[in-house]
Amino acid sequence: MSLIVQKYGGTSVGNAERIRRVAERLIATKKAGHDVVAVISAMAGVTDGLIKLAREMSAQPSEREMDVLLATGEQSASALTAMAVNALGGKAISLTGAAAGIVTDGVHTKAKIAHISPRQINELLAEDYIVIVAGFQGQSPQGAITTLGRGGSDLTAIALAAALKADDCQIFTDVDGVHTCDPRVVPDASKIDEIAYDELLEMAGAGSKVMQSRAVEFAKKFGVGFEVRSSQKDVPGTKAREVTPNMEDVVVRGVSLERNQAKITICGVPDRPGSAGAIFAAIAAANLSVDMIVQNASGTGTADLSFTLQKDDLVPAEIMLTRLVPKLGAAAMTATTGVAKLSVVGIGMRSHAGVASRLFECLGAAGVNIQLISTSEIKIAVVIDETELDRAAQATHAAFGLAQPRPPSNTAPT
Amino acid sequence: MSLIVQKYGGTSVGNAERIRRVAERLIATKKAGHDVVAVISAMAGVTDGLIKLAREMSAQPSEREMDVLLATGEQSASALTAMAVNALGGKAISLTGAAAGIVTDGVHTKAKIAHISPRQINELLAEDYIVIVAGFQGQSPQGAITTLGRGGSDLTAIALAAALKADDCQIFTDVDGVHTCDPRVVPDASKIDEIAYDELLEMAGAGSKVMQSRAVEFAKKFGVGFEVRSSQKDVPGTKAREVTPNMEDVVVRGVSLERNQAKITICGVPDRPGSAGAIFAAIAAANLSVDMIVQNASGTGTADLSFTLQKDDLVPAEIMLTRLVPKLGAAAMTATTGVAKLSVVGIGMRSHAGVASRLFECLGAAGVNIQLISTSEIKIAVVIDETELDRAAQATHAAFGLAQPRPPSNTAPT
Repeated sequence: MSLIVQKYGGTSVGNAERIRRVAERLIATKKAGHDVVAVISAMAGVTDGLIKLAREMSAQPSEREMDVLLATGEQSASALTAMAVNALGGKAISLTGAAAGIVTDGVHTKAKIAHISPRQINELLAEDYIVIVAGFQGQSPQGAITTLGRGGSDLTAIALAAALKADDCQIFTDVDGVHTCDPRVVPDASKIDEIAYDELLEMAGAGSKVMQSRAVEFAKKFGVGFEVRSSQKDVPGTKAREVTPNMEDVVVRGVSLERNQAKITICGVPDRPGSAGAIFAAIAAANLSVDMIVQNASGTGTADLSFTLQKDDLVPAEIMLTRLVPKLGAAAMTATTGVAKLSVVGIGMRSHAGVASRLFECLGAAGVNIQLISTSEIKIAVVIDETELDRAAQATHAAFGLAQPRPPSNTAPT
Repeated sequence: MSLIVQKYGGTSVGNAERIRRVAERLIATKKAGHDVVAVISAMAGVTDGLIKLAREMSAQPSEREMDVLLATGEQSASALTAMAVNALGGKAISLTGAAAGIVTDGVHTKAKIAHISPRQINELLAEDYIVIVAGFQGQSPQGAITTLGRGGSDLTAIALAAALKADDCQIFTDVDGVHTCDPRVVPDASKIDEIAYDELLEMAGAGSKVMQSRAVEFAKKFGVGFEVRSSQKDVPGTKAREVTPNMEDVVVRGVSLERNQAKITICGVPDRPGSAGAIFAAIAAANLSVDMIVQNASGTGTADLSFTLQKDDLVPAEIMLTRLVPKLGAAAMTATTGVAKLSVVGIGMRSHAGVASRLFECLGAAGVNIQLISTSEIKIAVVIDETELDRAAQATHAAFGLAQPRPPSNTAPT
């Protein structure tokens, strides 16, 4: 008897009909001879509706009360799913995060899971129940309801799979896996069968939002293999796992795109310790997130510093920096919208040179101008004009031979 | 420092603006020097919406899952109210029923409160919080979410007032108290200042649905005085309490009306033990509620048995009894809709004769035909044609001198 943890996102339980389909799948999995634990998100739209209500009550609602409020979304979706399973002849029971034994560090709205006491779940599994756990939540050691941050149901599923020593963890979503690129942009983009945790993290951080990053990090830390797959179609998805030797044969796993970016460049920043610190401390204090940060020293005692951020965060960042830049003694600031980020990701590039040159050459050949470049061990990201993103994506996807079947140009030499 | 428990119903927290008004009142009560515990119902419409969702999932959803589902309505309304108090400069914290220490007998959808451990509430009060408790719910000794039945927030408030030894318990609702009759029918109906628990029970059972009956019974058992008052207007309401000698001076406290009734009469029921039992066992098994039951033995070995029920329950009752009546050897069955119930209620009638005759005479003078009569120690109820109900109510209200100021005819002779 194997144990499978299945997680269903908000779209998968978005209405009665979809909940019923989830219930059918749970029953089928159970009938196939598995023990089943399901983690359920709030029905699509419910969390946003609750947040809207909270904002009507308070410009800055207390985080503790936000947790009490938002946890109800997953709680009700879990109960409804259990009802659906029972109505279809299955045997299900729903548990809140607290009842499932999920204990957090107690930090409201972004709690970390401290530990899981799976006793009650194990007892219910032994009684042949399909156990349905409300995602996104746990309780502090003092018993306060705490939530795990947006997308936290992914983390609930991965952590339960680890605590229960599950044989499989399936993340059901409205896409059928992770693709080599966005299929709406690159029609011959193909589903990736296997992906390394680090690759998925870079793809997720770069806009392929199929999973919460913290959940992937948790899976990596505890070696929990999982599969991202479609809740609508019964087809294999993408399996995320530890790196295996043959995974490194593929130099570039995929191309990730992120739109709606903005760029701020501060020119002539005095080249002395603390300048960059002052800028990003101010940005963090304003609760704005930056993505790429690139600095070039000019050799004349000043540096040019650029960073990207979400387009919506540009105006508050500009307002704040307009005051700060003169104090720093910097020369000027320019803010640009209409930019986008393209990243090529692959653990294989660690050991294979030439990825950067191939990327830059293909973009050049496509007539795409590169504004910023940033690299990590397994990623090269460029910022380009948003109007050129589709063309750049198609050219890059082709240059690295990512369409199926893969030509030998994207595999390592033997 | 006195402690006040305030309960707000679903209409009182029906939207953001109303929740803000509740928050203002809580803050004002706190500023007046009281400790404040608030019990909050689900926002109007939310519970019905959740029930509708559950019915979409299952014709007969499990009671355990219904509790998990429905408890979210009060939980979210409590969090929103706490946010509103905090936004207005107060200091509030919300607690689920479980966190408030409310332990039930574990019977799903109609749990009884077993005991309350008010430690956490007392600690929070000592830290100067306005403590906001989700109504209608508690947890079983095993930690399962259990709800107290429709209207259960009233019970939460009364039980907390008892456990906390509160100085006052205020039930805020969308009416400004209990009236001598429905003001839409009897324009000179007046608000009752003081009412005995038993009178309120009979009024509530007879259609003046201002409070859940179980809550009133609990208040009576533990001697918890409470006040039913308006959440919209800041005016005194109706105080429910133990009988005091001068309360008995008023023979009739009010006239209660109930529409949408139906009546079933079974004629020629063999006058032997078990006949009535068989009928009502079948009705209870079909989950139908009956109200009045009247039986008259004819002296010829058979009896005529009549009972009333909600109009909506008539068809299932008829279907069921059509099969049963021949088996019992009864002669015939007739079912009537378009009837209504009128009750006069007053603890004073225990010690004062003549109430029945005055009621029947006044109805006769008004040309209203009485179909059934039933009495309790403090109530006389009649079933009449629904089209005659308004005229009957006006005549009765006048006959017992219930309009303000009260004429001496309705007070006991001194």
